[in-house]
Amino acid sequence: MRAILVGFGFIGRNLVKSIRDKLAVIKSFHPQFKLVGISDVEGFLFDEEGLDLERASSISKITEYFEKIHEGSSIELIERSEADVLIEATPTNVVDGQPGLSHIEKALNLGMHVVTSNKGPLVIAFKRLMDLAKRKGVELKYEATVAGAIPIFSLVRDCLRGNHVRKIYGILNGTTNYILSRMHFDDVSFEVALREAQERGIAERDPTYDVEGIDAACKVVILANAILGKDAKINDVKREGIKRVSREAVRLARKAGYAIKLVAVVGDRLEVGPRLVALNHPICVHGTLNAVHLETDLAGEITVVGPGAGEETVSAIINDLLSLPMSGGYR
Amino acid sequence: MRAILVGFGFIGRNLVKSIRDKLAVIKSFHPQFKLVGISDVEGFLFDEEGLDLERASSISKITEYFEKIHEGSSIELIERSEADVLIEATPTNVVDGQPGLSHIEKALNLGMHVVTSNKGPLVIAFKRLMDLAKRKGVELKYEATVAGAIPIFSLVRDCLRGNHVRKIYGILNGTTNYILSRMHFDDVSFEVALREAQERGIAERDPTYDVEGIDAACKVVILANAILGKDAKINDVKREGIKRVSREAVRLARKAGYAIKLVAVVGDRLEVGPRLVALNHPICVHGTLNAVHLETDLAGEITVVGPGAGEETVSAIINDLLSLPMSGGYR
Repeated sequence: MRAILVGFGFIGRNLVKSIRDKLAVIKSFHPQFKLVGISDVEGFLFDEEGLDLERASSISKITEYFEKIHEGSSIELIERSEADVLIEATPTNVVDGQPGLSHIEKALNLGMHVVTSNKGPLVIAFKRLMDLAKRKGVELKYEATVAGAIPIFSLVRDCLRGNHVRKIYGILNGTTNYILSRMHFDDVSFEVALREAQERGIAERDPTYDVEGIDAACKVVILANAILGKDAKINDVKREGIKRVSREAVRLARKAGYAIKLVAVVGDRLEVGPRLVALNHPICVHGTLNAVHLETDLAGEITVVGPGAGEETVSAIINDLLSLPMSGGYR
Repeated sequence: MRAILVGFGFIGRNLVKSIRDKLAVIKSFHPQFKLVGISDVEGFLFDEEGLDLERASSISKITEYFEKIHEGSSIELIERSEADVLIEATPTNVVDGQPGLSHIEKALNLGMHVVTSNKGPLVIAFKRLMDLAKRKGVELKYEATVAGAIPIFSLVRDCLRGNHVRKIYGILNGTTNYILSRMHFDDVSFEVALREAQERGIAERDPTYDVEGIDAACKVVILANAILGKDAKINDVKREGIKRVSREAVRLARKAGYAIKLVAVVGDRLEVGPRLVALNHPICVHGTLNAVHLETDLAGEITVVGPGAGEETVSAIINDLLSLPMSGGYR
């Protein structure tokens, strides 16, 4: 299996390190596994014999691996590589899904499997991309797009076979959960908690995407389409952020045995908004943790808790890679 | 796929109902699926064309389905049925694993897959049975043996591929968790909480197996062997029950932000005993819920919460059935 990685940011760099560390395990699933290319906006690395993983793990920008650098776009790498799988790890763009959407379409059209950590293309075009993958006889996998390291899609697909999932709800954004947890435990204002999250690198300098619930709404769209079989778009999600959550409200909730959490609901209605959650409810997790709660017909109510972002997200990409069929494994 | 069910207690009866309700889904995995036999201590039902699932779902004892009743033992049903899979749902016996152990060995030796909800055989002979299954080229699946509906084994195998699990801990017994939760929230004594649990059918009349931590210790053995690759026996588990947990201790813990829980630990040491758990820790679940916490190298810390017993356990059996290879599917 020949893999290429498009996008060399936080996730991409950590993925390369994990591929280096886990090469023996990866080869137990895909004996001929090689990472043959990496691209970002500055060009691409390519070696059809496989890149040196030690070297690729030691760089922070692809230009530092100057022996293998090529000028050209990610699309050129996808076309030239003859890879079996594209790993798409460019940043999420919820307006038009680009550039990830073009990368994924190009790869699927060339008959490559795709593993993506990029929500944008799925939020814009879930059904179209899944249909394209099916038509081409390849897989499009996206475990890393929702709830970081929590393996929610494979859990439903591979561990709850025979179950019908009626409804999903939970905490799908680590940044806002960190802010609300600080407000809950330390009685600080939203502004103070946000500033601290920014200083610790948990919130972006422009925190809109997280605090307005846009990130969580993207995840709602993907969950609704992937698990409940809907054809939802982001405008179908009723959304409210956490900016107006006051210290006073958090304090009153706490006294009554509740926390205010940014809760995502995926059911008949699609919603993201601040909600009261009982402190002893399984989804009432704190800090940057995420929690996903499934209502099923056979297994009852199942909750999964784990890191919602960060380097642990690489686990989801690796599981997707190792779940791909062996078909390309001997190239 | 021809299936037989040995054991027609609470789990067995609920399983037959779920097979009836989910037949279309089951057939989408195993097109020729049929339940051809059911046995308990009173004899067995057998029809090589498949039992009437509506009829089999309506009975509480197999003798009520008098048209198909045969005299004879479960072993005779296993031998005669030429089934592709045995579902073993007789009660757990941790002394010698019988009669489940003989049932499973017989089936594996005949080249049948086995799906079991019975812990006893695995506690007594995990390695021997797994080796036998491997030698015979069949599968032995046991998702239902630990933490009820929580799909912990398939989660590790199918959703956390590439991960190394370092340690597992959690709440693995719903009866004791119910008792301790009542003590925590309602400030009652162990004796009062136990009596209430017995009245509600959550605790057995002889509660030893649960309250002494034996049930949880069995689950520790299975987790240690299946996930950490150990060859543990029940005597390797350091075990303490909850009888000596006092109202006063529970009250003090609560005031300090903790609950006393019967915690199972599966790592370098194997332990079951009452422990202080912070109220905001993800495993701090209440009532009859179970929680399993995994420490992994890639995905970080993942917790799964769900029903630890009851009819939801059937979900684990169904998932095991639907995960079996198709090989027998056309018989």
